[in-house]
Amino acid sequence: MACWQQTNIEIHTSGRSTVELSAQVNNVIAQSGIDQGLAHIFLKHTSASLMLCENADPTVLTDMETIMQRLAPDGDPEYQHDYEGDDDMAAHVRSVLTSNDITLPISQGRLNLGTWQGVFLYEHRYRPHRRQLVVTLNGQ
Amino acid sequence: MACWQQTNIEIHTSGRSTVELSAQVNNVIAQSGIDQGLAHIFLKHTSASLMLCENADPTVLTDMETIMQRLAPDGDPEYQHDYEGDDDMAAHVRSVLTSNDITLPISQGRLNLGTWQGVFLYEHRYRPHRRQLVVTLNGQ
Amino acid sequence: MACWQQTNIEIHTSGRSTVELSAQVNNVIAQSGIDQGLAHIFLKHTSASLMLCENADPTVLTDMETIMQRLAPDGDPEYQHDYEGDDDMAAHVRSVLTSNDITLPISQGRLNLGTWQGVFLYEHRYRPHRRQLVVTLNGQ
Repeated sequence: MACWQQTNIEIHTSGRSTVELSAQVNNVIAQSGIDQGLAHIFLKHTSASLMLCENADPTVLTDMETIMQRLAPDGDPEYQHDYEGDDDMAAHVRSVLTSNDITLPISQGRLNLGTWQGVFLYEHRYRPHRRQLVVTLNGQ
Repeated sequence: MACWQQTNIEIHTSGRSTVELSAQVNNVIAQSGIDQGLAHIFLKHTSASLMLCENADPTVLTDMETIMQRLAPDGDPEYQHDYEGDDDMAAHVRSVLTSNDITLPISQGRLNLGTWQGVFLYEHRYRPHRRQLVVTLNGQ
Repeated sequence: MACWQQTNIEIHTSGRSTVELSAQVNNVIAQSGIDQGLAHIFLKHTSASLMLCENADPTVLTDMETIMQRLAPDGDPEYQHDYEGDDDMAAHVRSVLTSNDITLPISQGRLNLGTWQGVFLYEHRYRPHRRQLVVTLNGQ
């Protein structure tokens, strides 16, 4: 029998950095009773994003930040949109280059991720924020 | 009860620019009668794409274009694929860096987007095109 | 009636290059009997990824590689994460800039792709690897 569940999650970030969400999403799946299906994670913001990334060595996330700063520079002189500071437009570009919606397989009642895969919330603003997620589960 | 609906949408673009799709997708959801579930939006092209982005200040989209022109330059001398002009290969790269499939939560019969979030079709070719979308709704 | 099916696929890559998956996913759909719905493709790795791209002219993939090498350089002197060689961190960045989860519409028992669209596995490591995919189908 098909089953739907939608859950809101709030994450408090500490400014530009990553927060791994895998355990929290697995808890929502466990409570749903869904054994096989899909977990859709959606972040309701345009200056933070979601990212699937290696979760074993913290220097991977450091290096990802190095590259993001090159691709979407803070305070670029060509930006017109800078109301909220040097990180404002850079955050929007980073969000577009990563993702705001990720869908992951559920198998045997858990996220079916690779051994070194984690799903992260990536805060792109300098200052701490409260970020809203909608987790939609669908399965049997 | 689970419900499926699949709808084709055609968008006429005016050349390189963005077209917000949020209202049109909400209309499809309203007609389906689905209250809670997921809306999948798919663009059947490789030289235009979909993007979730801030939809309040138009300069965000201007700045996004500035960055895209750096990351995927038009008429780059290293491109081998240039049959259809300077924007041909650049358009394919931009599509890969953004997305062609986006899944969004449906809550209370509408897209559950953040306050400043809009879903855009991003035309990457210089000239106007007719672009085909498939919207697949699944929910209850 | 809603129907779920989950299938594991292993792809052997020959080192940095692309492998088109469209035919293989269509085979899984044909066996499932699903006529309309969604196909979710997930790659369980962080150094290879999925990409929707033009599949007619091979120089598109050559040019994509040219751009990826600029955006995520191999052996960049700023990388801290280089245990497994020059392609290690570059592979993680390329994966984030492309995607590891793609959802595609199923219509009339097949992937409803555009004329020139193909779904590719993109191996980012220099050496051959065995890559694990989970294909989750949901439809009616």
